[in-house]
Amino acid sequence: MKKNILIIGAGGVAQVVAHKCAQHNDILGSIAIASRGISKCQEIAASVREKNAFKVPAEIACFELDALNIEATKSIIKETEAQIVINVGSAFLNMSVLQACIETGAAYLDTAIHEEPHKICETPPWYNNYEWQRRELCEANRITAILGVGFDPGVVNAYAAVAVNGYLDQTNSIDIIDINAGSHGRYFATNFDPEINFREFTGEVWSWQNSQWTSNQMFEIKRTDDLPVVGQQTSYMTGHDEIHSLSQNLNVPNIRFWMGFGEHYINVFTVLNNLGLLSEQPVTTAEGLEVIPLKVVKAVLPDPSSLAPDYTGKTCIGTLAKGKKDGKDKEVFIYNVADHKEAYQEVGSQGISYTAGVPPVAAAILVAQGTWDVQKMVNVEQLDPKPFLNLLNQMGLPNRIKDENGDRALSF
Amino acid sequence: MKKNILIIGAGGVAQVVAHKCAQHNDILGSIAIASRGISKCQEIAASVREKNAFKVPAEIACFELDALNIEATKSIIKETEAQIVINVGSAFLNMSVLQACIETGAAYLDTAIHEEPHKICETPPWYNNYEWQRRELCEANRITAILGVGFDPGVVNAYAAVAVNGYLDQTNSIDIIDINAGSHGRYFATNFDPEINFREFTGEVWSWQNSQWTSNQMFEIKRTDDLPVVGQQTSYMTGHDEIHSLSQNLNVPNIRFWMGFGEHYINVFTVLNNLGLLSEQPVTTAEGLEVIPLKVVKAVLPDPSSLAPDYTGKTCIGTLAKGKKDGKDKEVFIYNVADHKEAYQEVGSQGISYTAGVPPVAAAILVAQGTWDVQKMVNVEQLDPKPFLNLLNQMGLPNRIKDENGDRALSF
Repeated sequence: MKKNILIIGAGGVAQVVAHKCAQHNDILGSIAIASRGISKCQEIAASVREKNAFKVPAEIACFELDALNIEATKSIIKETEAQIVINVGSAFLNMSVLQACIETGAAYLDTAIHEEPHKICETPPWYNNYEWQRRELCEANRITAILGVGFDPGVVNAYAAVAVNGYLDQTNSIDIIDINAGSHGRYFATNFDPEINFREFTGEVWSWQNSQWTSNQMFEIKRTDDLPVVGQQTSYMTGHDEIHSLSQNLNVPNIRFWMGFGEHYINVFTVLNNLGLLSEQPVTTAEGLEVIPLKVVKAVLPDPSSLAPDYTGKTCIGTLAKGKKDGKDKEVFIYNVADHKEAYQEVGSQGISYTAGVPPVAAAILVAQGTWDVQKMVNVEQLDPKPFLNLLNQMGLPNRIKDENGDRALSF
Repeated sequence: MKKNILIIGAGGVAQVVAHKCAQHNDILGSIAIASRGISKCQEIAASVREKNAFKVPAEIACFELDALNIEATKSIIKETEAQIVINVGSAFLNMSVLQACIETGAAYLDTAIHEEPHKICETPPWYNNYEWQRRELCEANRITAILGVGFDPGVVNAYAAVAVNGYLDQTNSIDIIDINAGSHGRYFATNFDPEINFREFTGEVWSWQNSQWTSNQMFEIKRTDDLPVVGQQTSYMTGHDEIHSLSQNLNVPNIRFWMGFGEHYINVFTVLNNLGLLSEQPVTTAEGLEVIPLKVVKAVLPDPSSLAPDYTGKTCIGTLAKGKKDGKDKEVFIYNVADHKEAYQEVGSQGISYTAGVPPVAAAILVAQGTWDVQKMVNVEQLDPKPFLNLLNQMGLPNRIKDENGDRALSF
């Protein structure tokens, strides 16, 4: 039984995490939020207060923190008596925050794989380069560390586990499909941190095919699906976190990730990328100033959290698994549809932040209750998916399943 | 009679100026070149030496200079005994270099209107805001200052004067058309300093119509012409330097500038402009670094002078004048066609730099010989165009004329 939450980060996902923690603070205990800029923490705290989100009366404590500073992070963990840290800050912070958790005994939850500022799309399996190097240390210190427990990675990993273990005798392929059919009304914007968003697409596209790592270029391979609610959608094979763990943890020969992009997004991305403006490597201006182009692109783009008030439409994210059941071919699509406007009305964030922010809070509840307090480092597909998916059904992310028996709610 | 040349700037146009000065150093005397980076000056000096461009044996002296520093510029003018300064550095330098010339008695030649870093496309006539405020001072000090004596502005102004004074009794419209039908083989590049290039298109488009200043948006108005050599070409109404002087110096009610753009250029420009990446106003990155986006775009784009070796195709730039002659409608197109590869073979630069760099050297020769040493500040249309155009015929930029009597060489 663990309690008291420290949220690292103060972007759109952190806003959702704070609201959802507040809605469940009878189980989770106190809530604190720490970020590089304390004013963004205070805005989130004010938003939670404004919506009367607390189940039992409380306040959110705010801290200014450079989370690359392990000692500073440990101090805040100790001061807040946090036993669960939800890291939804930049992916550059993972290894530092994890270390602070290991040294203080706190459980660690994040939603994305660790990245180093000057490296893009590293050699697979990427987790081997960073988080998994701390597996033995976590086990020795009985540290619960749940990696990648957002929606994708996260919920889609649980969907994969359900498909492989519950619906198929033998699984040949897992295709994770992420479609945002919403509209933010701006000329161009990314739905989460532009820096992390673009970094996903500027390197090689790694996929797991025929039980081997396969490399392609971005926008080289696409597919079109007729999906529930959002209809006909084109998506492109993309490198993504969950391939790096599912390929190691499930015995499935083909695991791919597909993300939906409109032609306008692809055009803007292609122009910026071809010009070198998405580079993470510094350039020098004629005046002698050293600048990382990608950080300037981030600076001119809308803050993803600012998109929420005008966002309309829906997302559809799910896991399509194909294989054999009772000797016959079978395919099953397990998915969630989220609505941007409903997310904004509930927690003041758009749907992409909502789908990413609710799952780590569900995971925190399971850690708090002991169900998922596994006292070692795991990826989501290594945990029992049932209590997690049941909790998501109640927390605003209903799960559905579609196979030869129809399209229906999924609960256990 | 003036002699000894100081070239300010060391980009692609400066390279052409240096080569052409060397080819005529029997008339022009000694040649020096000064720029922020001395290595670029030295590269130009080496290129001139390599091509044996000097008419009489000589060397080019190189200087490191921040030409915003008037005293430093005066020192170099005095040290080199330069009586003619050809300013082909950044447009931000004009007023400083002009002041250094006024204080030392040197003649001043440039090829573009003065700009201030944080202002874009200023109120017309733009020259009123800067250079023309020194007209009386030049006249009092008997300073020869010839503004905008590149190709456009410059040669096209002379073409306009020829059309208005030599071919038409009454001129109703002057349309300057600038087409680059060449290909550099890169994904995207500008043909001269990207910063100055983009700044031309990010503000209002000023034109002179019905004897009034008229404002439009970039890419709002286009035309298609069937032009000599380059054929069918689409061009877009663009704000440009020469409109700001021709409108004041010639009694013509409609004066417009048109620049040819391909769809790819327009797409890249539109993406960058809509995202705010062409802004001259600083933004602050998440890390707190203050950066001007346009300077980062400049830093990632190819150096225009690097395009020269692979550049193929031709440019066609000219002045289309329409009006009445002997009571009948008449139109006349006076133009030049230049070839990128020929320019590279002769002076190591591409055709755009060539067309911009040859005219100021022709003007310098006319100043050196006394023909254009007018000892006041003028724009090109205020000078006798005939010796200038005759000299250009000999210096690699042959003039042609097309009207109801056919398409033929133009000389006087």
